[in-house]
Amino acid sequence: MASTEIDDNCNMQINAFSDYALRILMYLMVNGDRLVTSREIATSYDLSFDHIAKAAQFLSRHGYVSAIRGRSGGLQLSQRPTDISIGEVLRLTEAGSGLVECMRAGPTHCKLANVCGLAPLLTEANEAFFQTLDQKTLADAVPHAPALLNALKPCSDNV
Amino acid sequence: MASTEIDDNCNMQINAFSDYALRILMYLMVNGDRLVTSREIATSYDLSFDHIAKAAQFLSRHGYVSAIRGRSGGLQLSQRPTDISIGEVLRLTEAGSGLVECMRAGPTHCKLANVCGLAPLLTEANEAFFQTLDQKTLADAVPHAPALLNALKPCSDNV
Repeated sequence: MASTEIDDNCNMQINAFSDYALRILMYLMVNGDRLVTSREIATSYDLSFDHIAKAAQFLSRHGYVSAIRGRSGGLQLSQRPTDISIGEVLRLTEAGSGLVECMRAGPTHCKLANVCGLAPLLTEANEAFFQTLDQKTLADAVPHAPALLNALKPCSDNV
Repeated sequence: MASTEIDDNCNMQINAFSDYALRILMYLMVNGDRLVTSREIATSYDLSFDHIAKAAQFLSRHGYVSAIRGRSGGLQLSQRPTDISIGEVLRLTEAGSGLVECMRAGPTHCKLANVCGLAPLLTEANEAFFQTLDQKTLADAVPHAPALLNALKPCSDNV
């Protein structure tokens, strides 16, 4: 008998897309006005270029990042770090995640879906999670910008 | 270039073990004093017996469930549903999950680990999540016990 509705491998963690998005924002913050490419960010973090590029496009589409095209183009923040809410970003990148199967889009396989009272409780807890982060900004996530820039240097020097 | 530290497949969702544990508690609650076996619970939910049995042992070890041995033995709640905190259970079953890699046990591969301010923010948000659920009980998660019992019936009748 196999479970179809429970993913044995997942834990309560932010998804990869959220992680990429936050790393990009932190990278752009510490680089100030300097235009940086998705490739440089991917190399610095030793992460997949495709995933970083996709997350960068998402951030650009949602007005957090300006993408300047051309040979000397690149990315930079389009809002001040103190104006970028971590909660707001995560609400966008985590949209549809759903703590349990019945909270996610699509049909549910859980027999309890219509009679269980767990989803409203988890929704309330999830909202408390996001509300805490709504009040935190990108600047709060990078308390020591020079140290973070330095931590990324060995790789970014190779780009 | 491949990411070693980000799991592309995971979203922010409670882990399978938590899901199993909560389902067992709900099942035992609606069955009142009747002793039920892990096999009956697994069959009713159409879930893996091994996983249900493991989660049941965990709940027994932590004092939520009494396991009566023998031919007519089985499981029952060892606390009143109004005394079982959902937050307390999830804090146990989610222990070590960690929203991002540096919040989990073991070495971190993230270059920002020592200079990033994200983990404390996520920890605070995570605590708000659990605090909301600390005040919710198993009884809150099962507002309509007869309806839930009924939803599980077609399978439990076959056991």
